Amino acid sequence: MRVHNFAAGPAALPLEVLERAQSELTDFNGLGMSVMEISHRSKDFVAVAAESEALLRELLGVPDNYAVLFLQGGATGQFAAIPLNLTAPGDQVDYINTGAWSTKAIAEARKFAEVNVIADEQASNYSTTPAADTLRVTDGAAYLHYTANETIGGVEFGYLPEAGDVPLVADLSSTIMSRPLDVSKFGLFYAGAQKNLGPSGITVVIVRDDLLGRARPQTPSVLDYAVMAGADSMLNTPPTFGWYLLGLNLQWVRDTGGVTAMAERNQRKAETLYAAIDGLDFYSNPVETRSRSWMNVPFLLADSSLDQEFLTQAYAAGLTNLEGHRSVGGLRASIYNATSQESVDALVAFLKEFERTHA
Amino acid sequence: MRVHNFAAGPAALPLEVLERAQSELTDFNGLGMSVMEISHRSKDFVAVAAESEALLRELLGVPDNYAVLFLQGGATGQFAAIPLNLTAPGDQVDYINTGAWSTKAIAEARKFAEVNVIADEQASNYSTTPAADTLRVTDGAAYLHYTANETIGGVEFGYLPEAGDVPLVADLSSTIMSRPLDVSKFGLFYAGAQKNLGPSGITVVIVRDDLLGRARPQTPSVLDYAVMAGADSMLNTPPTFGWYLLGLNLQWVRDTGGVTAMAERNQRKAETLYAAIDGLDFYSNPVETRSRSWMNVPFLLADSSLDQEFLTQAYAAGLTNLEGHRSVGGLRASIYNATSQESVDALVAFLKEFERTHA
Repeated sequence: MRVHNFAAGPAALPLEVLERAQSELTDFNGLGMSVMEISHRSKDFVAVAAESEALLRELLGVPDNYAVLFLQGGATGQFAAIPLNLTAPGDQVDYINTGAWSTKAIAEARKFAEVNVIADEQASNYSTTPAADTLRVTDGAAYLHYTANETIGGVEFGYLPEAGDVPLVADLSSTIMSRPLDVSKFGLFYAGAQKNLGPSGITVVIVRDDLLGRARPQTPSVLDYAVMAGADSMLNTPPTFGWYLLGLNLQWVRDTGGVTAMAERNQRKAETLYAAIDGLDFYSNPVETRSRSWMNVPFLLADSSLDQEFLTQAYAAGLTNLEGHRSVGGLRASIYNATSQESVDALVAFLKEFERTHA
Repeated sequence: MRVHNFAAGPAALPLEVLERAQSELTDFNGLGMSVMEISHRSKDFVAVAAESEALLRELLGVPDNYAVLFLQGGATGQFAAIPLNLTAPGDQVDYINTGAWSTKAIAEARKFAEVNVIADEQASNYSTTPAADTLRVTDGAAYLHYTANETIGGVEFGYLPEAGDVPLVADLSSTIMSRPLDVSKFGLFYAGAQKNLGPSGITVVIVRDDLLGRARPQTPSVLDYAVMAGADSMLNTPPTFGWYLLGLNLQWVRDTGGVTAMAERNQRKAETLYAAIDGLDFYSNPVETRSRSWMNVPFLLADSSLDQEFLTQAYAAGLTNLEGHRSVGGLRASIYNATSQESVDALVAFLKEFERTHA
């Protein structure tokens, strides 16, 4: 029996995707081998890779002057790769700090460049995003980096920061493919796959052509965008099974109606859950309304001593992975693309029942 | 129907491993979720990770003063990580060049350190390994690096290079777990998983404690051994499915008799195949006898214009992935742990029949 899975990442995958992978796990394309057992340079795998890229381009509307890379190392690898590829020593870079992931990105960037934190939401305990008209980008900054959605704080930008001529760089790990995106506004964005794209172990980087070829001489080749773009992301053996599953997942997005349909589903799921939290006295969400995430909904019980009982009873009801992040505690429901309205409805019913029996 | 798979990597996996993964792909441990859909910090996944490490330590006899890391980026990532972690700018490092992979490792190391190539087998067209007693390690070198097995050339060291007090560093991507190893002789070794350990996308690094904590300040955190060791290889989200499959594969090695049994199987497979190649006039292997690989057996037809017909007929007979590497052409059979004696016997029967009908 499958459960309602609210994991923050690695996260729920569509059952159809898993069942497809399961059905061909020992025999892919009638080859008599698993997709894991064939060369990444075989025509069968090259087709998987090319179809994934074509689908990603189609679904997100990626212009031709952007390269699409499939790398290893996660968003944390990109925290280093971005300054290594886009700056020279001594360059200034701008960052917006909206919480835990921004903070990590900033700390890593400081190894390589002069970081200006042009907005920091610490005063609100990272429950806000800066007002769009307060951002002042540094003249000559190599880029402006922001975290479109903070998975721990549950804070999401409702707008694209305006960076003028400075390339806009974004961590979209938890929002990519959740709603339409104007790719042309970005210099670069990246996403670990394990929330909305597939399993962990594969990272998508989409980068404008004019930003390629600037890497520092001491950039590890596996993190050098121009090298990887020149090799179709196959400088060395890529994570083939993850890439294949990412492709199956993108097929599911397309067959479900694309990013517009994802956005409608996600908005409805989020509105359902926030309405329940706001409408019940026993629960609260600390994030300012305009910055509430569609993807990660942290919430608190009026009596935090009941957290463990809440989790135990939820688990018994088939509602899993509702613990808050270990750094902040409390509770959290992550509701990425693959989490259904039915799962959200089941959670809301549970919230009501738990309040009725415990408040 | 499963085929006889001689792929060089990603390579054959034991059918038992694939079937186990298949059986629990939508419901791992009775959780109602795939192993891909749970947090890497959940107790179920942490158990997978811990069991994998314990099995790797047990099978290879890894002493307690070595850290075992599970990283992303492949061997090519390690080509950069090794000098970043083990040298300061200006340090000298020694490399042995025995072919394509050594050459790549050397090129990447030159970005970071002063590389001395203390032996280079170019004169034999990389069909040899240096004589053990000719190696002269540089005084004060930060390490000596060698490639224990060259997958393209089919050349394998029959001995461990003697580096004295200089840490010995080895790329064991294609030989790890194929035969017993005296881990205590190494400062560090590493292996992309996609030959003898599991699927692509996960890389094992085993490093002696005293070599940790020396990384350059500008080392990307995902490649920093001390940072990763301190985080149990979970600084960020690891490639969970690959890690899980690696664990299943290690269970298969243990249940099959461990590395001693693997060595016996592998030696017999290699001897069977080389005996056939040497015994038939129509085939040849260019590698000096003492340096012939147990894992990768390149071979040439007396008439190379028949290569394509050989491959077509072999494929029809259920023998796949026998193309030589695209950089060298010819033919190659890779016979890692998961390739059975039965597959090698089938290949030998085909070699004989093809010679009979085409010589």
